Parts: sequence; structure tokens; C-alpha cells
Amino acid sequence: MTKRIGILTSGGDCPGLNAAIRGVARAAYDRMEGVEIIGIADGYSGLIKGDYRVMDKSEFSGILTLGGTILGTARTPFKDMRKIGDDNVDKVSSMVKNYEKMGLDCLCTLGGNGTHKTANLLSEEGLNVIGLPKTIDNDLWGTDVTFGFHTAVDIATDVIDRVHTTAASHGRVMVVELMGNKAGWLTIYAGVAGGADVVVIPEIPYDRETVIEAVRKRAERGKAFSIVAIAEGAIRNDEADLKRKEIREKRSAEGFTSVSARLAHAIEATTGIETRVVVPGHIQRGGSPSAYDRVLSTKFGVQAAELIYQKKFGYTVALQKDKLTQNKLSDVAGKTKFVTPDSDIVRAARNIGICLGD
Amino acid sequence: MTKRIGILTSGGDCPGLNAAIRGVARAAYDRMEGVEIIGIADGYSGLIKGDYRVMDKSEFSGILTLGGTILGTARTPFKDMRKIGDDNVDKVSSMVKNYEKMGLDCLCTLGGNGTHKTANLLSEEGLNVIGLPKTIDNDLWGTDVTFGFHTAVDIATDVIDRVHTTAASHGRVMVVELMGNKAGWLTIYAGVAGGADVVVIPEIPYDRETVIEAVRKRAERGKAFSIVAIAEGAIRNDEADLKRKEIREKRSAEGFTSVSARLAHAIEATTGIETRVVVPGHIQRGGSPSAYDRVLSTKFGVQAAELIYQKKFGYTVALQKDKLTQNKLSDVAGKTKFVTPDSDIVRAARNIGICLGD
Amino acid sequence: MTKRIGILTSGGDCPGLNAAIRGVARAAYDRMEGVEIIGIADGYSGLIKGDYRVMDKSEFSGILTLGGTILGTARTPFKDMRKIGDDNVDKVSSMVKNYEKMGLDCLCTLGGNGTHKTANLLSEEGLNVIGLPKTIDNDLWGTDVTFGFHTAVDIATDVIDRVHTTAASHGRVMVVELMGNKAGWLTIYAGVAGGADVVVIPEIPYDRETVIEAVRKRAERGKAFSIVAIAEGAIRNDEADLKRKEIREKRSAEGFTSVSARLAHAIEATTGIETRVVVPGHIQRGGSPSAYDRVLSTKFGVQAAELIYQKKFGYTVALQKDKLTQNKLSDVAGKTKFVTPDSDIVRAARNIGICLGD
Amino acid sequence: MTKRIGILTSGGDCPGLNAAIRGVARAAYDRMEGVEIIGIADGYSGLIKGDYRVMDKSEFSGILTLGGTILGTARTPFKDMRKIGDDNVDKVSSMVKNYEKMGLDCLCTLGGNGTHKTANLLSEEGLNVIGLPKTIDNDLWGTDVTFGFHTAVDIATDVIDRVHTTAASHGRVMVVELMGNKAGWLTIYAGVAGGADVVVIPEIPYDRETVIEAVRKRAERGKAFSIVAIAEGAIRNDEADLKRKEIREKRSAEGFTSVSARLAHAIEATTGIETRVVVPGHIQRGGSPSAYDRVLSTKFGVQAAELIYQKKFGYTVALQKDKLTQNKLSDVAGKTKFVTPDSDIVRAARNIGICLGD
Repeated sequence: MTKRIGILTSGGDCPGLNAAIRGVARAAYDRMEGVEIIGIADGYSGLIKGDYRVMDKSEFSGILTLGGTILGTARTPFKDMRKIGDDNVDKVSSMVKNYEKMGLDCLCTLGGNGTHKTANLLSEEGLNVIGLPKTIDNDLWGTDVTFGFHTAVDIATDVIDRVHTTAASHGRVMVVELMGNKAGWLTIYAGVAGGADVVVIPEIPYDRETVIEAVRKRAERGKAFSIVAIAEGAIRNDEADLKRKEIREKRSAEGFTSVSARLAHAIEATTGIETRVVVPGHIQRGGSPSAYDRVLSTKFGVQAAELIYQKKFGYTVALQKDKLTQNKLSDVAGKTKFVTPDSDIVRAARNIGICLGD
Repeated sequence: MTKRIGILTSGGDCPGLNAAIRGVARAAYDRMEGVEIIGIADGYSGLIKGDYRVMDKSEFSGILTLGGTILGTARTPFKDMRKIGDDNVDKVSSMVKNYEKMGLDCLCTLGGNGTHKTANLLSEEGLNVIGLPKTIDNDLWGTDVTFGFHTAVDIATDVIDRVHTTAASHGRVMVVELMGNKAGWLTIYAGVAGGADVVVIPEIPYDRETVIEAVRKRAERGKAFSIVAIAEGAIRNDEADLKRKEIREKRSAEGFTSVSARLAHAIEATTGIETRVVVPGHIQRGGSPSAYDRVLSTKFGVQAAELIYQKKFGYTVALQKDKLTQNKLSDVAGKTKFVTPDSDIVRAARNIGICLGD
Repeated sequence: MTKRIGILTSGGDCPGLNAAIRGVARAAYDRMEGVEIIGIADGYSGLIKGDYRVMDKSEFSGILTLGGTILGTARTPFKDMRKIGDDNVDKVSSMVKNYEKMGLDCLCTLGGNGTHKTANLLSEEGLNVIGLPKTIDNDLWGTDVTFGFHTAVDIATDVIDRVHTTAASHGRVMVVELMGNKAGWLTIYAGVAGGADVVVIPEIPYDRETVIEAVRKRAERGKAFSIVAIAEGAIRNDEADLKRKEIREKRSAEGFTSVSARLAHAIEATTGIETRVVVPGHIQRGGSPSAYDRVLSTKFGVQAAELIYQKKFGYTVALQKDKLTQNKLSDVAGKTKFVTPDSDIVRAARNIGICLGD
Repeated sequence: MTKRIGILTSGGDCPGLNAAIRGVARAAYDRMEGVEIIGIADGYSGLIKGDYRVMDKSEFSGILTLGGTILGTARTPFKDMRKIGDDNVDKVSSMVKNYEKMGLDCLCTLGGNGTHKTANLLSEEGLNVIGLPKTIDNDLWGTDVTFGFHTAVDIATDVIDRVHTTAASHGRVMVVELMGNKAGWLTIYAGVAGGADVVVIPEIPYDRETVIEAVRKRAERGKAFSIVAIAEGAIRNDEADLKRKEIREKRSAEGFTSVSARLAHAIEATTGIETRVVVPGHIQRGGSPSAYDRVLSTKFGVQAAELIYQKKFGYTVALQKDKLTQNKLSDVAGKTKFVTPDSDIVRAARNIGICLGD
């Protein structure tokens, strides 16, 4: 019988983590007899160190609306996931040992891509693991949406709404840099929602002249201002073959600390229009989850409890075609869900006249 | 060639209408040459009276974030859609005549179930009609979601969040009555998102004793307060066979003006716990659309323009399995999308311990 | 030496109560040695019953942003404050006894007018009492502003903003009924902030024809819609001499459950313009305090601790001319701060063309 | 008779500008016969170039809630206000000429310190000038509060609330850099409202060790995370004698682009606790004004119209001791309202245990 359920939250914090923890716990208590929930501190590092506690039922009350994670979190424990070197072997064996020591019947891991790689690793080591897809980046393979994403879109859209009035009042270009190193979901959703004129995402390398031309054309049509939404991981087409590290070094040598600062400089230097940069940064991942994310997190938690009940381990829960389902951890690990050129959102952006920089 | 596109918004106002109008217009200008957008005032009544104007491109700027509809709206023009009586025949023929007179190549109708019935009627009369599914009730058949719904969920959830603190501080039961005459989508989503203890929707007739028992049990466990979210169209199981009009009359004779007031009275009278009612009413449908609805409205607008481009008339756009698509108006007209007992949201609600009153 | 400080929150719950509790506690710990904070449950009823506990320092962390009150609250314990009858005498003597029993050196009471009456009573009985002015009504005498007020204005303004779009889209009159039985601060502030066309407050009895005329004139100028903000305690000029109970009975006999429903009916019946009522009710007092109220509550808490330190009892803290200060409880008890006809807010409302109904 | 009233908005954009414009216009129409409002584009630069238009009454509808300014704005036209050199003389004489050419009877200038200096200059040149105190910095001398300030506090507090959850979940120090070069009003208000642990403002030079010690002490008490709110113009006590330009150069030479980055590096390097920086930037001045600022802007607009009516020129409107009033432009020009060490807000911050870095 499944009795002792471990839970940990790993990776960057994200709205909806507590709602998902609550969902797993409440549904587990509801579905099964004698359940105990073991809270593991600070992601996998708590599993490595054996830092955990048995949680009281009352701890899951009042956390639905709470941002962050009551369990604490830490970035993935492995520097380089590709090679499980000496150090990694030790860490994995510590985790396996502590899983035994805690007497766990299964382990729920809430996190994004890094978290799911490690979850798959532990699953391959024989542990009963279930994943829950959390990330504001929405780039986890196999699920239509991850929790945290739509809250981040709300925040990023609010940022664009606010700079819109400054842009319009001053006749300025505002370049808003949003989170997303590899995938541009957050940037393109917030860009469309905020009425951006240019949206630049990592999946579509941008041509600097094309972006500048879009700004200039608006100015010629009497719109002195423009809004550019750019993902932090956006790539210029003439640097598409370089490694990210090389791009960063090149950019730094040119005196720019970010992709947005560099593009803003180019726009201002070429068009003569005053251009400013806004980097909302960490506020995109903080605070109370939106109603959408509270529902989604709860559903994911409930689905995870369902899998535990069915003893269906080695999976991560997912939403596909608007239905709860699950994917094998081995299918998800190491994959990224990118914005594809033929997706509805890209087509919609183009059709309403947004310049995507290509 | 499709040149003159008429647009009207019909039924209760709803966040996202302007974003959808903008989406249709921008994508139509983008896809086709020589497009003219004809704005028809106040829903079908403008079509009946011939109240319209050719719109300027600039009118579609700055409206993405605007609540309500720049075209004006009115409830469905037919008292009884089931029989197209003398008066209705006149109205329909006026609409057909004015469509001709305006020289329209097609007509986009943005609205909910009533709007789609009329849209289908006009399509059967030979007009080129395309629908866009708008309703905060989310009860339009054939689409996973309608625009306006998630903004309404945000607002209703905020209402529950706010009364939560009053309930907890005073040890009270708060009964929150939300919109939804036939379908309980808004109530169950907001109920789950707001952490309601009891959720009562029209699709699941409620047993008064069951609801009271849920409140009493919480009190016994030391939780002096409870939150009950109830749809305005909720039905008591012993009245499930009565007509809505009969229920209203019965309720009124008992001295209650609403379903929530009646339930609140029963709870207070039986448990002795102070019980208050909150009816947020029209605020659920007003204000700026959420980021989610701005994106969805834009997508729907773009898809409508696609259908116009393809001369694929007699359809309403839809989101199915997370993809843009369309349904025949004849398939949608007269149907309602209900919350089903085996849906993910109902299952999730039950599993986390929400009482659904049955 | 002042060591044991009792705190209670009384009357309707209100944003900022927890922030004020935190302010008192932190500043008391900071200013004095060996302080113990005694939390009294559910307002004066906890003092009557002797329901209290010594609080831990950690309980004051993380409550700054929390709506409601962690101590619980209840309405004033006396039905009729004017005559301290047999029952009241017993209650007062219980409170005095329990104050002694708890070994309190002083008692902080957070509340509005009713709370301050009782606070003054206890002060006259010889207890060391300090008040903190809390009420969303802003009607406490002797302070420019009470905490909770500006959060309520934010919420009520948001309500008006939302119904604005519905009013404009449907060409309707929307009558929004806001809290305020005796004083119209909330209604006139939210009315001005929300751009209402008519604002009706208890201090200025309204002429029905004047209100209807304002709506009609707008319609004649092509503005089909109007927003009317009305306080729940608004009085019609031809009923100004009646008692409130008589007005309610008269209204009820006419078939109206509220002041807003009655006015809405008159507007619709006379002008023919569709008119709807919105009564946001309890949401006006719930939820997280605004930044303004968090600061004000903190300041009031700090000032209360200052008075405790100075052993200056029998006072309630206040903000006068933008400075922290205090008033004697005996000066405040039984008085109401009304909106005066020559105040800046009334003058501003009139000058920008708002009809005040007179 | 005063008939032609010019209005311009100058300096950084700010929530409430449109509400104030609307207030002036509506009250002017209300108080006086035959009023014409002349909208001058882009601040003083529009006055210099003669870029203006007569505005229609309808343009003042629907702008109450709108962020930014419908007139456009630009920074102050003078590089160095201290010496009115050749170029400045030309600009001033252009403004005087255009004032005549437009046939203005008076000029309302909405702005902050820079704007008021120029307003005073024009007043000294004999123009009829009235100022309205706008700035999110709240540092205009002679008024308790400026419009825009409390909206900015709301936004900045929301930023702190959001990073709070990240800080707590990751056990990190978050350094939030807020606007305010000379005055720390925004930072200290948002810091108190957001529950910051350390607040650093320009008026109180900070000691690096003191700040680090505050963070370390919290860590020792088991609070792994801390929030530091720092104004962009904060000064280190060992650099208090340097000029701002020298500080920036020194900081830049050390490799830091901002005061927050430098402090964050010091904290992380010394304590070993992961430390992150958030710079919300322009979002602090954008978007719809809060209810508070809509009311304040409206009041200021109404008071400006009152002064116009009274032909009382050479003043700027103000709020003093919670009442509308005015100050001479010559008294306001060139002064800054600083946060004083003995103010209520500083005392409150200290008493609840916030470290102010000194």
C-alpha cells in the first residue's frame, strides 16, 4: 500500500507550486488510507542531505493562493546533466539512500526541464517517481501548458501595459526583455496580449535591420512610439551559429549587458528615436498564482495522486488536448517544447501585423 | 472578392470583444486587398434598423485592452427563438435586406448562444455568416473555451479571495452567487481557484442537507467559517422537476430574492452560524480582458479572417484540443456545453474535498 | 513598567488590521523591555469571556499583507450603547475582571465608532486603553483618515470601472450601491475616482427628480449611459425627517430591498433607459490592504506603542494635518466625521460636473 | 476675462496627468464662460515650437483612468537651469512669443521640480502661469503629496511582494532598486508597505557593513532571506562627499552598472548568501492611476481652475494639512522636499525594526 509520499519542489520558484502541493496532498488523503506526506526541503538538495519532515494535514490549508513554495527550492543539483560524473554518482546514490531511509513509497517532484531530467534519472534507479510540470517558460515537452506560465504572462503583460503609456507619452521605443532562454512562449503571449509591435523570440533568429525597419515604418505612419518585446535568449540571425557563451562574450565586449540593451542601442542609433530598456526580471516568477494557475495546479496535483493510487510510476502529469493525462518521464527528459513557426500563436501574431524580426 | 465585412457584437457585454474585433479587422486587412470593415451598432438591432458605418483603420488601434464593445450591443432581438412568428419574420427579412443594402460580402457575429442561433438563422437565409464564440459562461458548444470566460473567472476568484478574509475573521459562512443560469463553468472554476468549501452548479442539483452538513462538519473540525460558491441557476434536488419560472415564484413566495439568499437562510437557521450573501453581479462581465482573453480573442479574430479569406461561411470559430478550428453554425445553434460529472474539473473539485452538494 | 499589552480587533473586518497589530507589537518590543503581547479573541466578546493567549513574536511575521484579522472579530457587544442596562453592566464588569485576571498593563482596541465607544467606557472604568482608528467608512471623528478606507476606495473604484464598460456598451444606467450608512466618504471618493455621473451620499439628501434629470440630460447630449454611485444610507429629501427604520419599512412596502433598487426603478420607469443595480457588498472590506493602508496601519501601530511607552492612556491615535497624533477617547466616542458640503472633495465633485442629487 | 487656457505636461510621464488635465478643463468650463482649452504638445518644447491645438470638450471624456498624457511630454528644455545662457534666452523668448501668439490668458504647467523652475521663469517674464505638482518622486516642496506618487508606491510595493516569495523560497537576498535620485519617498513607503528588511534612501547615507550585518543577523535568527529596498540615488557614507558623477564613475570602474548591483555583490561576497537584483525601472511610472491619484489629480485640477477664476497667477496648487491650497512658484522653484530623519515614516520604519543602513 502506498503510504509515504515524498514531495519536493525544484528549480526556480513559480506561482502555483503551493497549490499543486496542496492538490497532491488533499487528493492523496482523499483517495488512500493512512497516507503520510513527507516534505523534502529545498529541492533535490534536501533529498541529498536527508532534510525532510512529516507534514501535518493542516499545513496544506491556506496555501492555495500563496506564491513561492513552502518546501523551499534550489536549482538542479548537477552542474552538467549530460555526464553523470563522479560527483553526480555520489549525489544520486545519496538520493536513493535517503529515499529508502525515509521509507518513501513514492516521490513527487515539481519542476521544469532540469527537474524532470533528474526525476527520470531517479526513476531509472528504481525509485517510484511522479513529476508535475512547473515552469513559467512553458517549455516542458508533452503538455499543452505548465503551471506558472499564465501567471507570468499576466505579469509580463501588465509590464507592457505600463510601459505603453510611457512610450506613447514620450514618443519613445520601449524594449521589454522577458524571461525565456530557449523558448519564447512567455514573450510571444505577453507580446500579443500587450499589443507589442515587435516580438523577438529565441526560436526565430531576428534580423536587426528588420526590427529597426518596423520601428521606422511606424514612425513614418505617425506613430512615434513602438513596443519591442524580446526574450532574454533571443538570437541575432548573423550569430545563429555561435554558441550562447560566445554570443554573451561578444555582446559584453561591445559594452552591452543584455540582449535588450544591445538592440535598444541599435534602434536609437539608427532611427534617432529615444529608446529605453525595461527588464522586469524576477517579478515574472513571484507572487500569488492567477485563477488559471490555481485551477491547473490543483488539477495536476489531483492527477498525480491518481497515478500514485494506480501505482503508475515513472510518469509526469500533463494536459493534452484540454484533458489531464501523463507522459513517461523517459519521454519528457531532455526535451524542450519550442514555439513552432506554424503554431496558432505565431500565425496570429503575424496576421495582426506584429513584426517577428525575420 | 470579399471586400465588405460587417461586424456586430450581440448579447451581454464581455471582456475581449474589442480585442476580437481588432483581430478580425487587422487580419482581414493583412490577408486581403481592399477590405472595408462595416461596424453595425448595438448587435442585431443595428442590422434590423440599418444602423452602421464604414470604420477607419485607426479605430482598431488602442482597443485591445478596452472592456465592453466599441460597437455597442443589445440582447437577442427575438423574444422566443423557438417560433419565428410574424414579428420575427419581419426582423429576419429586415436583416437580410440591410445586409444587401450595406453591400456586405460577409457578416461576423460575436456572441454567445442566443447570438449563434440568430447567426445560423441568417446563414440559412443565405447570408455569409461567421460566428465568434464570446461568453463569460463558457457554455457554447464545440469550443474548449470562449473568450471572456477566464477574465470572469479572475474577477469571481478575486471576489472569493476577498470574502475569505471576512469569513475567517468573523467565523461566518459566506455564500457567493456567481453568474451562470444553465452552466456552472464560472462557478466551479472560481470555486476551485478561490478555495471554496462548497460549490453548487446548475448541472448538479444540490441537496440542502448535504450542503448544510458540509458546513457543520467544518465547524466541528474547528473551522468556524465556510465559503459557498453557488451559480445563480443552481437547482435544489427536490425542485429539479419544476420549471425555472415555477422555482422563482416558489422562492419569491418564501420571501427570497435569489438562490443564494434562500440557501444562506437555510444554513444560518440550521447551523446557527452567521451567514452572509455576496452577489457581485455585473462586475463579472466588465473591465479590461485578462492576458489570456486578449490572446484568445485575437486568435479567434485571426481565425475568422482566415475563414473569410477561404470563403468558408456558415461556421463559428473554435478552440478544440488547444488548436484553432471551426464548427458549422448549424451544429452549434441551440446547443449548450454543460459541465459533465466526469470532467477533470469536477473530479478535481471532489478529490480535494469540495462538497458539490450531491 | 508596561509589560503585558492586550490587543483586540472589534467591529466589521477591515484591511490593515493585521498590519496594525504587527505595528503595535514590533514597536512595543522595540521600545520596551520584557513586553508580552496578549491576543484577545473575537473583539470585546473575547474580553468578556476571557478568551485570550500570549502571543509569540513569530506570529507577527508575514501578516503585513494579510486581509482580515488573525485575532478574529465580532460586532460591538452592546445592543444599545446609549443605555448601559443590566446586561451591559454585567458585560462591562466581566471585561474589567478579565483585564485584571490577564494581568494587563494596557489594552489596545482596533475598531471604528462602536469600538471606540466601548473603549471609552472601559477607560472610564479605569482601564488603560488605547484605540486605533479602523474603518472602511472613514467616519471616525478626529483623524483625517482611518485605515481600511483607501483599500475600500480602491475596490469600489474597480467595481465602478468594471460596470462602466457594461454601461457604455449597452447604453444603460448602472446604479452602484456602496457601503456607508451614515457617512458618504467611500461613495464620494470612489465616485470621483471612477468617473461617476451622479454621486448620492447620506449627508446630502437627494432629490429624485434631480438625479433623473442628470441622467436624462446626458442621454440628450448623446451619452446613452450613466453611472450612479449611491451610499447604502442615502436619504431622499422628502423622507429626510423619517427615521431610518421607517424609511426601510416604507421602501420594503413598495417592494424594494435596497436604496439602489428603488432609485434604479425610478430612473428606468421615468427615462425608459434600461437600468441595472450592482451591490458589491462585503468585497469592499476584504482582502489584502493596499500599500497606502499598510503604511498607515503601521504608523498607527507605532504611534500606539509610543503612547504605551509614555503611559499616555485614554487616547486613540490619529492622523491630523498629515502628522501622527492622538485624541482623547472621551472626545472621539459617540461622534461621527461626516462629509461636509464645503469640503474639497464635495467642491471638486461639483466643479467637474458630478450631480450630487441636490 | 480669462478665456484661453493653455495646458502642457512636462518631465517624465506619470499616472494622473490625464485626470488632472480633465480636472482643470471640466472645472474651468464649469466656473467660467466661453473657456477654450489650448493643448500644447510635448511639454515646453511644444511651447517653444508653437505646436498646439484648441481642444474639443469631448477630448476630456474617458481619460480619467488613462495612464501617461494625451498631450505628450518631454524632459525640461534647459540643460542647465542655473545659468540662462544664450540658448536658454532664445528658448524663453520663443515661449513668451508663442504664448502671445496663441492668445493665451494663462498657462497651466503640470510637472515636477524641473517643470516648476521653468514655470517660475515664465512667470517672472510676465506670463500668467499656474503649476500642478506631478511626480512619482513626491519631492516637490510645499505640498504634502504630489499626484503619481501613491500609484508608484502601489507598483513598487507589488514588485516587493512578488520578489518576497522568490526570496523566501530560495533563501535569497533580493535587492530591489526603486526610482528616486535625490529623495527616498518612494523607496521608504514601498519598503514599509512591502515589509522590506532594509531600506536605503538618498537622504540617509548607508554604511555597507550595517546593511550586511542586518542581513547576517536575520540569517542567524533562521531567516535565510532578506529584502533590501534601495533608491537609485542612494549614497554610501564613505562617498557622501563625492559628486554624483564621481560616484557613478567610481562604481563603473569597479564593474557595476547600478547602486543595487554593487550592494548586492557586497552582500553576497561577504555573507555567502545568494543575492539577486531587481530593477523594475519604467514600470513605476506607467499605467492607470490609482483611485487615490485620480482623486488627488482631480482636486488639483479643480484648484488650478479656481486660481484661474480668481486670476491668482504665479502659484502652484498644493495639498497642505489635508487641504487644497497653493504656493508661490518663486517659493517652490529650485527646492526639494526631502525625507527628514524625524518624519513619521522614518520613525515608523525604525520602530518596526527596519534597518535604514545608518
